[in-house]
Amino acid sequence: MEKYIHRVQYYETDKMGFVHHSNYIRWFEEARSDFFNKVGAPYTETERRGIISPVLSVSCKYIKSCYYDTDIAIKVNLVKYGNVKFVMKYTVTDAETDELKAEGETEHCFLNNDGKVISLKREWPEMHDYLLKLSESE
Amino acid sequence: MEKYIHRVQYYETDKMGFVHHSNYIRWFEEARSDFFNKVGAPYTETERRGIISPVLSVSCKYIKSCYYDTDIAIKVNLVKYGNVKFVMKYTVTDAETDELKAEGETEHCFLNNDGKVISLKREWPEMHDYLLKLSESE
Amino acid sequence: MEKYIHRVQYYETDKMGFVHHSNYIRWFEEARSDFFNKVGAPYTETERRGIISPVLSVSCKYIKSCYYDTDIAIKVNLVKYGNVKFVMKYTVTDAETDELKAEGETEHCFLNNDGKVISLKREWPEMHDYLLKLSESE
Amino acid sequence: MEKYIHRVQYYETDKMGFVHHSNYIRWFEEARSDFFNKVGAPYTETERRGIISPVLSVSCKYIKSCYYDTDIAIKVNLVKYGNVKFVMKYTVTDAETDELKAEGETEHCFLNNDGKVISLKREWPEMHDYLLKLSESE
Repeated sequence: MEKYIHRVQYYETDKMGFVHHSNYIRWFEEARSDFFNKVGAPYTETERRGIISPVLSVSCKYIKSCYYDTDIAIKVNLVKYGNVKFVMKYTVTDAETDELKAEGETEHCFLNNDGKVISLKREWPEMHDYLLKLSESE
Repeated sequence: MEKYIHRVQYYETDKMGFVHHSNYIRWFEEARSDFFNKVGAPYTETERRGIISPVLSVSCKYIKSCYYDTDIAIKVNLVKYGNVKFVMKYTVTDAETDELKAEGETEHCFLNNDGKVISLKREWPEMHDYLLKLSESE
Repeated sequence: MEKYIHRVQYYETDKMGFVHHSNYIRWFEEARSDFFNKVGAPYTETERRGIISPVLSVSCKYIKSCYYDTDIAIKVNLVKYGNVKFVMKYTVTDAETDELKAEGETEHCFLNNDGKVISLKREWPEMHDYLLKLSESE
Repeated sequence: MEKYIHRVQYYETDKMGFVHHSNYIRWFEEARSDFFNKVGAPYTETERRGIISPVLSVSCKYIKSCYYDTDIAIKVNLVKYGNVKFVMKYTVTDAETDELKAEGETEHCFLNNDGKVISLKREWPEMHDYLLKLSESE
């Protein structure tokens, strides 16, 4: 899958002169949103079906700083997909030089609007099958 | 009314070395939220009654930069209150030196959950009376 | 000049269900940054020359809500350009339907690294001439 | 050490109706900043000495959602302190009910302004001794 590209904005920097570390967590979400659009399961559709997928945990290892007005590439991999949880991995590089900037993971579950854990297999079987295959091919 | 105090955070700065201008708009909201708590009309209660008060317009004049780990004081005034709209004014100063940092305004209306303009006078008459008096005393 | 396109992110929404008003101010900056890239005066080059252009004032009129995962178009116009100040205007529309979402302005000056107002005409005459012509053609 | 208190702001929520997960990472920084103020090593002083302490890694486990206009308590512990790195742990609870909301960690190093790793023991021995003792008492 094509990498997601994020142009670094001025408001994402801090007084150290480069991007504030919290923004990588937001970039993960941007890339994840783009990923689900590309596989045909946009969040807007998921939420229309009464399903949300909140973040259970996040981690990020910062390797090199990111600078204003450069293009950052984020590769997303669905590294685990089970009945109730899934894990995504993010590889953040400079879009031009391929320098590794950061690596991270997020873990998610599927909930209904009452906050109850639901099975995607039951609620949206085609998407379940698709994501399962995708995770197995990683 | 006592001024609202905001401690400037590192993540609010940008690579110029001081606070990014967009954050003042967020500080206005913090101070406004605090204001409505103090007058007994917290947003949580307003929203529980099915009323939201989105921002119709915002303006801010930046006078002096704000720096990390300093305390900023924000004075809020309800400068206009009508049947369907209200205007709040914000005076941003250094909490220690009283140096004027910025001045701004926001304009709001009251909507129900369907996005229809509603009259606070009808929906919450006691609060209407209170805010009307407050705005007249400015 | 081609409009700047911003895809609305999940983290830009708030509990009202649509984009938080403070983010429009950040979108203005994104579009401004893109504008200066297109006219050959990227901020990175401006700052390399020891010049910063902080925001003196900002205003925004909110007309329609913006929603997650939609494309927003921002048209930037340099409506005033003088010796020491310039004003930019932003027209925010839905990229697909052209529905008007918001309108705003920002006012800027040019400072050197000591915070002194400088004349772009003296510091970077070619850029001064270019921006002057651009503003006159609006 | 007294817990750091953060009042949840409206702009920190997203369309799920509660706080966006990226903000916890910012709260960690708020609490860390407060911690270093309390132990007499404010970042402003650290940076004045030509030392920065960027984040090497971050992790957060989200347990319960946080809601607008509630007070969140963040307990900070310096769980490891070595010659070149230190690790801080954050325990996020509801300030009123003590309900556990999240747990996280950040890892940091000390750099000089050229981005070279430095030893706090050499650059600021009294602070080194203090932090070492503090981490041993955890």
